[in-house]
Amino acid sequence: MLLCDIGNTTYHFFDENSSYKEDAKLFNPSSIKREVFYICVNSSVKERLSLLDNWIDLSLHVDMSRYYKTMGIDRIMACEAIESGVVVDAGSAITVDIIKNGNFEGGFIYAGVKAMNECYKNISAQLEYSFNFELDLDKMPKNSRDAISYGYLGLLYKEVASYGMKIYLTGGDAGQFSKLFLNSDVDELLLFKGMKNIMKKANLC
Amino acid sequence: MLLCDIGNTTYHFFDENSSYKEDAKLFNPSSIKREVFYICVNSSVKERLSLLDNWIDLSLHVDMSRYYKTMGIDRIMACEAIESGVVVDAGSAITVDIIKNGNFEGGFIYAGVKAMNECYKNISAQLEYSFNFELDLDKMPKNSRDAISYGYLGLLYKEVASYGMKIYLTGGDAGQFSKLFLNSDVDELLLFKGMKNIMKKANLC
Repeated sequence: MLLCDIGNTTYHFFDENSSYKEDAKLFNPSSIKREVFYICVNSSVKERLSLLDNWIDLSLHVDMSRYYKTMGIDRIMACEAIESGVVVDAGSAITVDIIKNGNFEGGFIYAGVKAMNECYKNISAQLEYSFNFELDLDKMPKNSRDAISYGYLGLLYKEVASYGMKIYLTGGDAGQFSKLFLNSDVDELLLFKGMKNIMKKANLC
Repeated sequence: MLLCDIGNTTYHFFDENSSYKEDAKLFNPSSIKREVFYICVNSSVKERLSLLDNWIDLSLHVDMSRYYKTMGIDRIMACEAIESGVVVDAGSAITVDIIKNGNFEGGFIYAGVKAMNECYKNISAQLEYSFNFELDLDKMPKNSRDAISYGYLGLLYKEVASYGMKIYLTGGDAGQFSKLFLNSDVDELLLFKGMKNIMKKANLC
């Protein structure tokens, strides 16, 4: 069974034993002849894939009454992966979603590390610092790097910690964020778990 | 007594009874002949002003042992304006500083409204929303606009409210933020109060 999570820059494949990525600009989806169960956040790629019979769009099998209309399909799959907890998906954006007893309770969208670095830099060259993921959050900062890191990372940490739930960390920056969320469960394949759960519900496997 | 707070885009003047702004690109500081007590975050403007005898740099009269080296002089003046509380200066960046019994206890730097709007937009066109300053913070969001507003405004609100101190709101976006910080004290001239306090300490008035 081949799964694929398609973002704006990569096709991320998972085939039971291994996961690998292909560049979205270079990869030709018709080069794959076996069945692929996919999710895709890019509407033009999605249109292209709808013409290929062996590419099966899992978003069509989601019970959307559990979520909201404009919610990203990647967020939904992360939510489908767990029973209770908070999912922090740290990619170009950081999505934070709460799931209680299998129900989506709401969530929010924060800027990703790269975007936020650019954002501070665009405000002023004096605000261009790399974030300190090992910041001491018990003290109010008294230097520029920590003042910026606290603004970006500290506020996110405090919000997420305030839920008192198990934290599931995924996405390209999960490794970095595991230094901040020390007791979190890091799982870069979390979305694929959600995809498998959807397939089970829809009797696709 | 003429005071001036010089940012990257404007000269903001205050002369006891009124305040007015001049465009930093167009304004010629040597057109003023009387004494001007100023602070300036722009190093090239600062160099130019150092050649004019009637422009007096108030940053030279600050006891810097109370702050930290790279801290913006505008933040310092806002801190000098109050005895106890939290100052939220909402401009191109948002600075949040805690003052207890006249002592600076630390603070952090968050992105301003305009920069953050750009930031979300740059991540994805799907994240381009105006922020909802009247967001209900007691509920986790279940729509895109509120998910983004909560990420940006909600986390800031919760952090600032957690101090349990009086909130002083200043800066160009203070009006908008007063919808979020309902019981805050909005004072667009707060920095000038700090400047006057520095002048008193230094026997300049």
